[in-house]
Amino acid sequence: MTYCVGIKLNAGLVFLSDSRTNAGVDHISTFRKMIVYEKAGDRTMVLLSAGNLSISQSVREILQIEELEERGRDGPPITIWNARSMFDAARVLGSAVRHVYDRDGEALKAAGVDFNVSFILGGQVKGEGMRLFLVYSAGNFIEATPETPYFQIGEAKYGKPVLDRVLTPDTPLDEAAKCALVSMDSTMKSNLSVGLPLDLVVYEANRLQTDKVICIDADNPYFRMIRDGWGRKLREVFDSLEDPVWNDDQSAHPLKMPAGRHGALRKISTRDEKLI
Amino acid sequence: MTYCVGIKLNAGLVFLSDSRTNAGVDHISTFRKMIVYEKAGDRTMVLLSAGNLSISQSVREILQIEELEERGRDGPPITIWNARSMFDAARVLGSAVRHVYDRDGEALKAAGVDFNVSFILGGQVKGEGMRLFLVYSAGNFIEATPETPYFQIGEAKYGKPVLDRVLTPDTPLDEAAKCALVSMDSTMKSNLSVGLPLDLVVYEANRLQTDKVICIDADNPYFRMIRDGWGRKLREVFDSLEDPVWNDDQSAHPLKMPAGRHGALRKISTRDEKLI
Repeated sequence: MTYCVGIKLNAGLVFLSDSRTNAGVDHISTFRKMIVYEKAGDRTMVLLSAGNLSISQSVREILQIEELEERGRDGPPITIWNARSMFDAARVLGSAVRHVYDRDGEALKAAGVDFNVSFILGGQVKGEGMRLFLVYSAGNFIEATPETPYFQIGEAKYGKPVLDRVLTPDTPLDEAAKCALVSMDSTMKSNLSVGLPLDLVVYEANRLQTDKVICIDADNPYFRMIRDGWGRKLREVFDSLEDPVWNDDQSAHPLKMPAGRHGALRKISTRDEKLI
Repeated sequence: MTYCVGIKLNAGLVFLSDSRTNAGVDHISTFRKMIVYEKAGDRTMVLLSAGNLSISQSVREILQIEELEERGRDGPPITIWNARSMFDAARVLGSAVRHVYDRDGEALKAAGVDFNVSFILGGQVKGEGMRLFLVYSAGNFIEATPETPYFQIGEAKYGKPVLDRVLTPDTPLDEAAKCALVSMDSTMKSNLSVGLPLDLVVYEANRLQTDKVICIDADNPYFRMIRDGWGRKLREVFDSLEDPVWNDDQSAHPLKMPAGRHGALRKISTRDEKLI
């Protein structure tokens, strides 16, 4: 499994990925799922991948070494290195996904393997603002907006609530990085197939190069603080909420049977007598 | 969708269910998923159901009105009303699931519908301790143990972390009820197809009848306190964790590039030059 998250803020972009892959619980390996494409001063792109590793590796290889068929109307082939916009770069990525599908799709289907892959692609090309895309296995894609400033791929559910509670376009970069790490911590706690080390990139708007690039392993002091602190404090919050008080009018928040139609549970006291 | 949780503690049992069903997001209805079977002083059982509603309703109907084929060696048919143990009651339930499969399975398969159903059955029969079972769509089942004192069915992921952090066999009943409600709140926040009203039953060990039975709607003071308080305090905890400090040796918890082999991210600076 995999967990990756990409976040687009006014202040910049944040990318975080785990590095565990598994083919069954008895076949677990470490593969990095993040790759940075950078021509300093001209473009910076970060690619995160999830799904079938043979597919995502093929797509990444094609992005690097092959001329793609996606062409401008008259000019040379468009690649991620000469794309004029992130939108064009997302099209190049989608085209690479379709290329692999054309090559491998039928054989995978014959073997009963889904063509399962997804990507987060974000970054900035000189001359336009930052953009963040989610690319599906059909090569189609969607773009993040202020209402939904992040994308997840892989095991998304455990880590989603904290993203929803914290992230807005105005969130500062370091706070968003913290949020992504808490989200990753929740995911790793609940799904053994998501694991260390993590790759984290924090990109400041309009820099057109990445300085804050880090690999986080089990010894990282900050991530250890997150892991210990979040769990302990969550428990303190839980304990600070009052326990329910049943049908006590003295309580400020009684757990009281409401009046009205919703009050009756279906309770069968004998086989023939129903209290509905 | 559905979210139900059943918890077995030394002090008793806790059951919580939502009441939303959907066939697509444009077809949402309210159906209660909890049913209590009780012969006071002799047996109390609580049944929670998830999956295809036509299947779970059929199973519940069979449990009520039909004689089941599951027979004791010589005696009369075993039903949930004369089962000598919760284990036998779980077998009766499994048998009812298989009965519906025999009747509907083929037609459902022809229509491309999975035979998707699952149940949590817990309670106590006079003469033995409390027991809690998870019954699958094949009619087979597993029992909760001290190491795993709870079962979930339906949309389980969002609400699982808090159960894992809080529940042990020694957890008091009211604290476990609070924990189940927090778990439900997290699930409802992230999955629109899980919704109010909720049914909550708290059963005290060896009572052989249920007093604490409640339906919780949007006006319930305690659940409103949980919803407001948990979200607000989670945010406070998040804010109380320090933001990352990059490569600063003065920080107690720097987010620092570790030495060693994990330090290098795959970064491609031009098409031909790889920094690995």
